[in-house]
Amino acid sequence: MSPSPLDYERDGTAIYERSFAIIRAEADLSRFSDEEADVAVRMIHACGLVEAARDFVFGPGFVAAARAALQAGAPILCDAQMVAHGVTRARLPANNEVICTLRDERVPALAAEIGNTRSAAALELWREHMEGAVVAIGNAPTALFHLFEMLDAGAPKPAAILGMPVGFVGAAESKDALAENPRGVPFAIVRGRLGGSAITAAAVNALARAGL
Amino acid sequence: MSPSPLDYERDGTAIYERSFAIIRAEADLSRFSDEEADVAVRMIHACGLVEAARDFVFGPGFVAAARAALQAGAPILCDAQMVAHGVTRARLPANNEVICTLRDERVPALAAEIGNTRSAAALELWREHMEGAVVAIGNAPTALFHLFEMLDAGAPKPAAILGMPVGFVGAAESKDALAENPRGVPFAIVRGRLGGSAITAAAVNALARAGL
Repeated sequence: MSPSPLDYERDGTAIYERSFAIIRAEADLSRFSDEEADVAVRMIHACGLVEAARDFVFGPGFVAAARAALQAGAPILCDAQMVAHGVTRARLPANNEVICTLRDERVPALAAEIGNTRSAAALELWREHMEGAVVAIGNAPTALFHLFEMLDAGAPKPAAILGMPVGFVGAAESKDALAENPRGVPFAIVRGRLGGSAITAAAVNALARAGL
Repeated sequence: MSPSPLDYERDGTAIYERSFAIIRAEADLSRFSDEEADVAVRMIHACGLVEAARDFVFGPGFVAAARAALQAGAPILCDAQMVAHGVTRARLPANNEVICTLRDERVPALAAEIGNTRSAAALELWREHMEGAVVAIGNAPTALFHLFEMLDAGAPKPAAILGMPVGFVGAAESKDALAENPRGVPFAIVRGRLGGSAITAAAVNALARAGL
């Protein structure tokens, strides 16, 4: 006997459309502009949790600044390989470079030298790319904290910061610190413990789209 | 004036230890065996949500089967690049292959041929690796559904299935279907909409560790 076919949606476009419709029906997006809501929907899609919208904060001018930077060819600086690999290359508007320096062979020695994690030390290798870049931190709170230290010490300013590390130690604090003092850089955060590489990459992918 | 140093934990080991302590203090892990709880803690760590533990289901013999397969050198078959890139190669016990066929050039034509998503079609290229493998599906419900179709049609049996796709269309249904009829393969799922590449990779990494 041949097995009976299973009943499920097999059309990728239909799955996306129905997913976004469910999210827009269930999530409270009323705090957001239309452009912010577009990004928020894709962030919710990545984590499967409509309640996460409560924790999304888009700083003034964030979406416009990040979109403009990507259109202008800004590189995307990622703290984790998973973030970098979640960015859909084919959708990037200017063949933008996606950079993750975490596995650079110099990082372990740099981490020992500055007395910080490898995730934080990897940012030391971002300097030549930072001016006008889109920073996407989706994993390590120490990376976000160290970004502040580098900016306070005069490192070049990125065009926008996605501060979305996940976790239980430092994640909430690092994101609150970004919202409190964004050093003049437009930012977006996910408050609290939530965040992560999928949410962060989804936000980058939403920002990379040509329009809504 | 030199900027004041920020106050945050910079020691990676201390961050991990404190994170796991917080998770064990807050999460209800009472339904799990010690070995399951070890995996659950790392899955929670990846998503930042202790409440997610409610949705974790470990089928009978799952942890032992997955650990044994990894120790024996089983490949890890991933539905998404983000899952594959979340697996920590250095921790794998037998230099296990990590395989993701999603970007294989044959996949678009296969998808058209079988009338399914590229994520599902990519599994057609798993066949030669499936026998005794550890399957890690963390993104696409269609991939998990198509795995059932392949198994029902006689494809080789993996040693264990991590069924943890995320999302709003088909995710919950595909995981319920796995729990209801695991086709004789030990499984773990995250019920409902939650799941994703980070949780899935974290589970694989936990299973890959030599001991608790």
